[in-house]
Amino acid sequence: MRVTTLGSVATHDHAAARVEGVRRRNLALAVRVISAEPGPVSRAHIAARTGMTRSTASSLVDDLVGAGFVQETGTASRTGSGRPATTLELATHRFAGLGIEVNVDYLAASLLDLSGTVRHRASEARDLRGSSPEDVLGHVGEIVEDVAAEARRQDLELVGACLAVPGLVGPSDGHLTLAPNLGWEDVDLVPRLERMPALAGLELRVGNEANLAALTERTAIRDRESFVYVSGEIGVGAAVVIDGRVSAGRHGWAGEIGHNPVDLTGPSCSCGGRGCLEQYAGLDAILRASGSTEPLVTPLGGESTTERIVARARSGDMATRRALQQAGSALGVVLAGTLNVLDLDRVVLGGTYRVLAPWVSPPLEEQLSSRVIGARWSPVRVGVASVPGEAPVLGAALSVVDRVLADPLPWVERERRSPQVRQLAADL
Amino acid sequence: MRVTTLGSVATHDHAAARVEGVRRRNLALAVRVISAEPGPVSRAHIAARTGMTRSTASSLVDDLVGAGFVQETGTASRTGSGRPATTLELATHRFAGLGIEVNVDYLAASLLDLSGTVRHRASEARDLRGSSPEDVLGHVGEIVEDVAAEARRQDLELVGACLAVPGLVGPSDGHLTLAPNLGWEDVDLVPRLERMPALAGLELRVGNEANLAALTERTAIRDRESFVYVSGEIGVGAAVVIDGRVSAGRHGWAGEIGHNPVDLTGPSCSCGGRGCLEQYAGLDAILRASGSTEPLVTPLGGESTTERIVARARSGDMATRRALQQAGSALGVVLAGTLNVLDLDRVVLGGTYRVLAPWVSPPLEEQLSSRVIGARWSPVRVGVASVPGEAPVLGAALSVVDRVLADPLPWVERERRSPQVRQLAADL
Repeated sequence: MRVTTLGSVATHDHAAARVEGVRRRNLALAVRVISAEPGPVSRAHIAARTGMTRSTASSLVDDLVGAGFVQETGTASRTGSGRPATTLELATHRFAGLGIEVNVDYLAASLLDLSGTVRHRASEARDLRGSSPEDVLGHVGEIVEDVAAEARRQDLELVGACLAVPGLVGPSDGHLTLAPNLGWEDVDLVPRLERMPALAGLELRVGNEANLAALTERTAIRDRESFVYVSGEIGVGAAVVIDGRVSAGRHGWAGEIGHNPVDLTGPSCSCGGRGCLEQYAGLDAILRASGSTEPLVTPLGGESTTERIVARARSGDMATRRALQQAGSALGVVLAGTLNVLDLDRVVLGGTYRVLAPWVSPPLEEQLSSRVIGARWSPVRVGVASVPGEAPVLGAALSVVDRVLADPLPWVERERRSPQVRQLAADL
Repeated sequence: MRVTTLGSVATHDHAAARVEGVRRRNLALAVRVISAEPGPVSRAHIAARTGMTRSTASSLVDDLVGAGFVQETGTASRTGSGRPATTLELATHRFAGLGIEVNVDYLAASLLDLSGTVRHRASEARDLRGSSPEDVLGHVGEIVEDVAAEARRQDLELVGACLAVPGLVGPSDGHLTLAPNLGWEDVDLVPRLERMPALAGLELRVGNEANLAALTERTAIRDRESFVYVSGEIGVGAAVVIDGRVSAGRHGWAGEIGHNPVDLTGPSCSCGGRGCLEQYAGLDAILRASGSTEPLVTPLGGESTTERIVARARSGDMATRRALQQAGSALGVVLAGTLNVLDLDRVVLGGTYRVLAPWVSPPLEEQLSSRVIGARWSPVRVGVASVPGEAPVLGAALSVVDRVLADPLPWVERERRSPQVRQLAADL
């Protein structure tokens, strides 16, 4: 509240910091215009959108092009006279973010360039229930080295990595407190990632798989919408998105609906409770209820198990249909409670539910319309996720790219200071 | 983002608006220092706390004293030399906020002066299940006129009123969408309040009873804590408080836990569902389960029914103890789900639960410790509300007082413009 006059000694540093602050904001702003506009964007366009002068916008874009953040894609004819403008888009040729996922029955990795295009993906089916973090992180390390090698082949420099895990994780420190379906407790994941040679020196983070998966709902997030994103694999998690931001809660544990009870006298659960949502709506539980005895190891995103379930439901198998009906109904009961607490009216079905929606959605919506207390006045909309499968690993990679795009200054400065540094980094 | 130079025409108005803005902020700031400090506050103290000059602080305090916001209470000896400083506190002699409550089995009103002291209270036991809003607002009107007359007798001027209701209510428009236990739907409450002569011309608002009751947790709110406040009467509601702010949700309907299910095959509920929390943990349900056939009409805050239950539980009546055990357990199941979704670890028991806590808390805490997924790492604390009973009506009055204290400028200006206006208002 106190306003003080700057001492003359401090003025110069302060002014320099202010200039850098403005430059940092303007670079981020230019990137945001390029990434957010649906059509082609020119330097003049950025100036008009941001209120910068044409020459400021043009010089910032030159820096972004030089640093490998933005690329010139061609020319757009302009209404009126003058030269046609050069169109710009986020660069695809220099940087990439790495997403990694450890889930209950698969490992996955995904490489995204700054434009959000998937440049490489890898996955490995593996039953990780009761696994040891050492073993699993060992396999993750191999996948990471493979993907990093592929990045080098494509001449892409890694700008960071993010690991998605199905459990309680603190986004600030990457500490995994509990992943019930893996059987993991109190694992510090960041130091284990740091030891992987391909990730040395990079910014590394860990996040909850549902919270990261929700980031793939780009349109809803850009439009600052509010919704609950449900991520269903063997476990069932959710992300609470308020006004386009994932609301992680006090510890980063928000949205943990998988162990909310459906029936207090129901089957016992890995968490020690009875009748938890996962015992009705998890992939494992659906398979069990449908009478399947097939092994539950599925490739990336659970597609194959899910597709077996889909095939049986399509063929009219009554046990499978009943299992899906029960899953949808259980999910509806718990989501109704969730929406009542949060006062939200939109659900996005991700993970396996995206594919199972034709069977899961009707009983789910029935529960929501009868149990959400305000549903008659503000009907709950239930939709499926925008991205087919792999949402957690894609969201993890997106979170890396988004962080870099939100603050291009360090990368632009690195480029200005020494063009050789980049070459050096690429050669390593 | 665009910075434009002010045209010379606009400069003068702009400067005046800026000065008024600074004055408005400083007045609010001075009031905040006076209300927040635990010990006596002087003009010098305000200057030191806010970074204002002594003369600015002194002149603002003079205005606040003149307008009836602040009163001088005496002198404090100072360390060092000089005159002893005059101590200040929020004024008790001029303004009051009116809280009103319509609950399922009582009506209540409460008059609070700016210091937060209750200056008058009124209540009326009345079974309002299936009531008509017209009839009830008629009775409310009578209570309001009585309380307003009492305010005049105490030479207090009403600065606004807020009505607490047990249902879904939009805080911005005061529209009641649904109050299941009253049987009310789609009632515009503000126009009905406006028609009451004592409230003419005042700022009038309507809020959910649990959300308003949570405002009485002054210490936790001042310390920006996060918790779920449970308000239990015949209905069961909750307020979600994040970093000291009640989080009302999209429509103002957040925290509606009363109809979250405990047992899908349980007793049918007024909402049309089965096995809702209220069917186990509402006052009505507890009485029923304890085998009582006594009529359920209770005076303010449900004290007498609650005390009958307490007396029976103390005397060792097994049916009553079982009913309370069941209530606590059901509340624990639903609150565990709520805490999992929100990632919170603190519960404040308000309403009748405050008094029933010795019996309700143990089974509640048992459920929380086994069902809150992060409880082992971040144990859930369960405490009772700071204010005995009447929390919704007190919170409603507090919300009025808080709004006025947050922006004293209009009242100070009114005083400066015409001291007669106040006299006129007082005479009316």
